[in-house]
Amino acid sequence: MMRVPFSELESALQAMLLRLEFAPERAALCARLFAETTRDGVYTHGLARFPRFVATVKLGVVKPAKEPTKVSGLGAIERWDGNLGPGNLNAWAMMQRTMELARAHGIGAVALANTNHWMRGGSYGWQAADAGFFAMSWTNTLPNVPAWGATAPTVGNNPMVLAVPRPRGANVVLDMAMSQYSYGSIEKYMKRGERLPFPGGFDEDGKLTTDAAAIWKTNRALPIGLWKGSGLSMELDLFAAMLSGGLATHQIPRESLKESGLSQMFVAIDPAALGGEEAMQATADAVIANLHAAAPEVAGKAVRYPGEETLRVRGENLAMGVPVEEGLWEQLVAQAH
Amino acid sequence: MMRVPFSELESALQAMLLRLEFAPERAALCARLFAETTRDGVYTHGLARFPRFVATVKLGVVKPAKEPTKVSGLGAIERWDGNLGPGNLNAWAMMQRTMELARAHGIGAVALANTNHWMRGGSYGWQAADAGFFAMSWTNTLPNVPAWGATAPTVGNNPMVLAVPRPRGANVVLDMAMSQYSYGSIEKYMKRGERLPFPGGFDEDGKLTTDAAAIWKTNRALPIGLWKGSGLSMELDLFAAMLSGGLATHQIPRESLKESGLSQMFVAIDPAALGGEEAMQATADAVIANLHAAAPEVAGKAVRYPGEETLRVRGENLAMGVPVEEGLWEQLVAQAH
Repeated sequence: MMRVPFSELESALQAMLLRLEFAPERAALCARLFAETTRDGVYTHGLARFPRFVATVKLGVVKPAKEPTKVSGLGAIERWDGNLGPGNLNAWAMMQRTMELARAHGIGAVALANTNHWMRGGSYGWQAADAGFFAMSWTNTLPNVPAWGATAPTVGNNPMVLAVPRPRGANVVLDMAMSQYSYGSIEKYMKRGERLPFPGGFDEDGKLTTDAAAIWKTNRALPIGLWKGSGLSMELDLFAAMLSGGLATHQIPRESLKESGLSQMFVAIDPAALGGEEAMQATADAVIANLHAAAPEVAGKAVRYPGEETLRVRGENLAMGVPVEEGLWEQLVAQAH
Repeated sequence: MMRVPFSELESALQAMLLRLEFAPERAALCARLFAETTRDGVYTHGLARFPRFVATVKLGVVKPAKEPTKVSGLGAIERWDGNLGPGNLNAWAMMQRTMELARAHGIGAVALANTNHWMRGGSYGWQAADAGFFAMSWTNTLPNVPAWGATAPTVGNNPMVLAVPRPRGANVVLDMAMSQYSYGSIEKYMKRGERLPFPGGFDEDGKLTTDAAAIWKTNRALPIGLWKGSGLSMELDLFAAMLSGGLATHQIPRESLKESGLSQMFVAIDPAALGGEEAMQATADAVIANLHAAAPEVAGKAVRYPGEETLRVRGENLAMGVPVEEGLWEQLVAQAH
């Protein structure tokens, strides 16, 4: 691992996207979203994910010039078609549209069909909260988690984002998939020969296990909360696919590079529609103070709220440079210029 | 256990509520909600819960005559005050209001402060889906689950409901709390001297365990998905308390009978605002068919969707009478008449 200045990472990504025939302003936003993901410490979905993104563009799965178009709608809710454009640009545009609807109606929602992987879901939570909105958003995915009671992948890990705005960017942003551990994470433990810290799936005897290699073999990753996460994943899939008129999880191609045609939901709430925003922030401060005051399991290690670590890592990475895998970085610089 | 006709249970509950000075139409709705909860097989929150409900009315915690009043709002979102009225009547009224907003604006939301325990959360999901709406709703609770990394209850188990409408009442309704097992459930396993089927909390050594008695002792029930459910619970609390202007989990009295002043969120979406409802139902049918076709863990035991079992149990209980604990039933009949 090495560190490079944030702006250098952003510029290199942008140059590469221009070579892939992204329009200049779209290359800039797409590069910023990837670079910010690495900056915020979500290393799996920033630069590390970029080569796969490039591959999907080259395969024609992701169409750089395509933008979302409105299909239908009434008042505060709309259905859009993502036209298989870049997933992060589509999601960003849809959250912007959702916020416009929320500004006009207090709450707004967009259901988006035919889009691509949005990379870091949290990006759209930060986007909304930084603009002062509460937001919820989720995406479906290819089938990668067995439904509760099934032995093969049936439901998606369908990441969901919830965001609460707070002053000075100290937003509370949760970005969570419906699987306890991703297969990427399970693979890392397996390669290191380590056990998972907590049960993450089933072994060949159908028992819960922390043995990463055993889960890799059965392909039976665990939904969060066992039967609960399985049900939640299915609900999120139904909301997104039905309201967008797009594909449901089981209709999405099962090959990672061809995963496409996703369905997503975006909801935003403008707190100004209700008034009392100072009191709202006093409530948030009190909730966080109470959390920080909770007796910690490990002495001296205070409990954190979702997003708290993000701000710390962001500050560190902006000051010291963002960590990048040396080989990936050199490859990007060589290809981009 | 014995079985009584659904209408007899409903009538006896209604008679008791009239004695508690509920207005006739409010007694009827409140009784129906309790009776339907038992009818649908959620036995913990139907008749079995009614004596505690009566106790909170007698204590003055639940105020039978109080109805919610509107505080503020703009367009599709409103803030209401529950005035400490009966939690199930308040929640029912707020979901009705949310659906009115959704009918006018495509999506609608209500944030409700100062309410009481809503009993079965799923009731409001069925209410919305039976009327043709998609819905999401959640409540906060007193602190009963340690936040991830803490050793004492910090966050609520904040039940959340998601509902997808389908023809002939075959709705997909998920009603889930953020704890893997309720303390009521842990207590039952402990009293029977049985282990939980899956880890449900921490023992004195801070290890995940299926030992119900050990969890009862540490008071460290497990959030679903470990750190994930802990974060989700906190987000739901922030949304509900900030947007309603009401209490957050840590501000709610920690004694079961005095748990009051809850904050709740209601969101409904009218699919007619987007059009293509036939295609939506075709998608739902395909998702469910795919689920039913999944290779089951136990041969012959098909995977079920959330709410599927409810319909089966409902049919059985309407046909054979709803199961009630004999002592509770006799007590109700004696007190009500």
